[in-house]
Amino acid sequence: MKKYQFRLELQVRDYECDMQGVVNNAVYQNYLEHCRHEFIKTLGLDFAELAERGLNLVVIKSELEYKRSLRSGDRFWIGLILERISPLRYRFRQDVYLQPDDQLVLKGWVTGTGVNAKGRPQLPEEITAALAELS
Amino acid sequence: MKKYQFRLELQVRDYECDMQGVVNNAVYQNYLEHCRHEFIKTLGLDFAELAERGLNLVVIKSELEYKRSLRSGDRFWIGLILERISPLRYRFRQDVYLQPDDQLVLKGWVTGTGVNAKGRPQLPEEITAALAELS
Amino acid sequence: MKKYQFRLELQVRDYECDMQGVVNNAVYQNYLEHCRHEFIKTLGLDFAELAERGLNLVVIKSELEYKRSLRSGDRFWIGLILERISPLRYRFRQDVYLQPDDQLVLKGWVTGTGVNAKGRPQLPEEITAALAELS
Amino acid sequence: MKKYQFRLELQVRDYECDMQGVVNNAVYQNYLEHCRHEFIKTLGLDFAELAERGLNLVVIKSELEYKRSLRSGDRFWIGLILERISPLRYRFRQDVYLQPDDQLVLKGWVTGTGVNAKGRPQLPEEITAALAELS
Repeated sequence: MKKYQFRLELQVRDYECDMQGVVNNAVYQNYLEHCRHEFIKTLGLDFAELAERGLNLVVIKSELEYKRSLRSGDRFWIGLILERISPLRYRFRQDVYLQPDDQLVLKGWVTGTGVNAKGRPQLPEEITAALAELS
Repeated sequence: MKKYQFRLELQVRDYECDMQGVVNNAVYQNYLEHCRHEFIKTLGLDFAELAERGLNLVVIKSELEYKRSLRSGDRFWIGLILERISPLRYRFRQDVYLQPDDQLVLKGWVTGTGVNAKGRPQLPEEITAALAELS
Repeated sequence: MKKYQFRLELQVRDYECDMQGVVNNAVYQNYLEHCRHEFIKTLGLDFAELAERGLNLVVIKSELEYKRSLRSGDRFWIGLILERISPLRYRFRQDVYLQPDDQLVLKGWVTGTGVNAKGRPQLPEEITAALAELS
Repeated sequence: MKKYQFRLELQVRDYECDMQGVVNNAVYQNYLEHCRHEFIKTLGLDFAELAERGLNLVVIKSELEYKRSLRSGDRFWIGLILERISPLRYRFRQDVYLQPDDQLVLKGWVTGTGVNAKGRPQLPEEITAALAELS
């Protein structure tokens, strides 16, 4: 198992399951987004405040490999690693594991950037600083 | 622009937009799923009926490249191409275009397979037939 | 059947169904919201533009009576009547019918008001005018 | 404040907020459903297992009074009271409070019943027993 910088524990809610009785594929993107937003809070950044200031963090690419389904009531955790891929782009490695035996549920890579109020690429300083520490 | 086998026209609904005022990333997976389910109806297949019979079509990989945001009220269409990648796996190429000028919004690749009631890989005959026609 | 001022036709999408195989209760609120926003466009009002201008239309009460479930692929329509209940409050009567036989699916009443950028109650002129015409 | 039989603490996730920057009205139904399903687990009942056995708990009426908006990151709790209203019908009183000052966010009443595999009204014994204890 990878060394994650951040972990978030969650539990499946019934309304997240579809007619196959499993968590719908789209819902994993919700889980991963929530995990990223909780993570950036640990860097002193708040997604909602940034959006109000006109600095939007945006996803430019998502890659998700579904390994196993989550079902009603399942407890799981998401591990996150932030990686730098260019001066203005970062990538989150995000993996989902079923508790209590840590079976792999999903492997994810989410690439993002920042866009300022003028529509130009710009990263918040806190992200730049966090990325600089990584390299 | 690619030659698509199937097209679906949709319009953004306000509840699909998030605090940034744009369609939330996860919602595109909803759009793409709906498009695939509408497409397989043209092959004589119904996702819900298959699920009731215990034959579940499942996504094993999603790759989404976000090129441009959709906003409240935007009209768009999704183009779909079904590709065979192995005897038991297929891939949908799914691209989203903003109307009326066909600006590219999203490029997507969704790989899937079928799983029968015993949990073994199995594709419905109609999918196998459709894939055979393509090759 | 009531005389509706506005009608919207929709179709169930599979991702809107939950593990019981029916449209999840919460999704009807999405349907009704979408119908209201489409309706106010016929009055020359756009929910998203109003929100950007700091004038938020808000729901203060929802009452929904569920009469029958919608399922995968069902086509249905929503009928809407706008009623005035006080100088600053309006109520939408919104009913859902299954096609093609117009079986009643849901009866809804949604009460709303407007709140301006200062947090004070205020209705857009177009709504006030539409309500005045009704009385 | 009422004496609640059950409480559930939750936190707003950013994807639950809409373009007005507040939790979308429909999402409260998700919250309330999740709270009810967690509550019935304390009675020994599992919504998903019941659905698999063909015994569907269904909502027949929802009444929601929205008193205050929830926003990104808000912590809140839901208080629940189960009430008997007829041999085959029960009602959940469900109220939402913002933490840490317990400001009232939403007052809700959700009426439900059970429907068995033959489509006939039937309540699980555990619910009947819980309702009997209340009277």
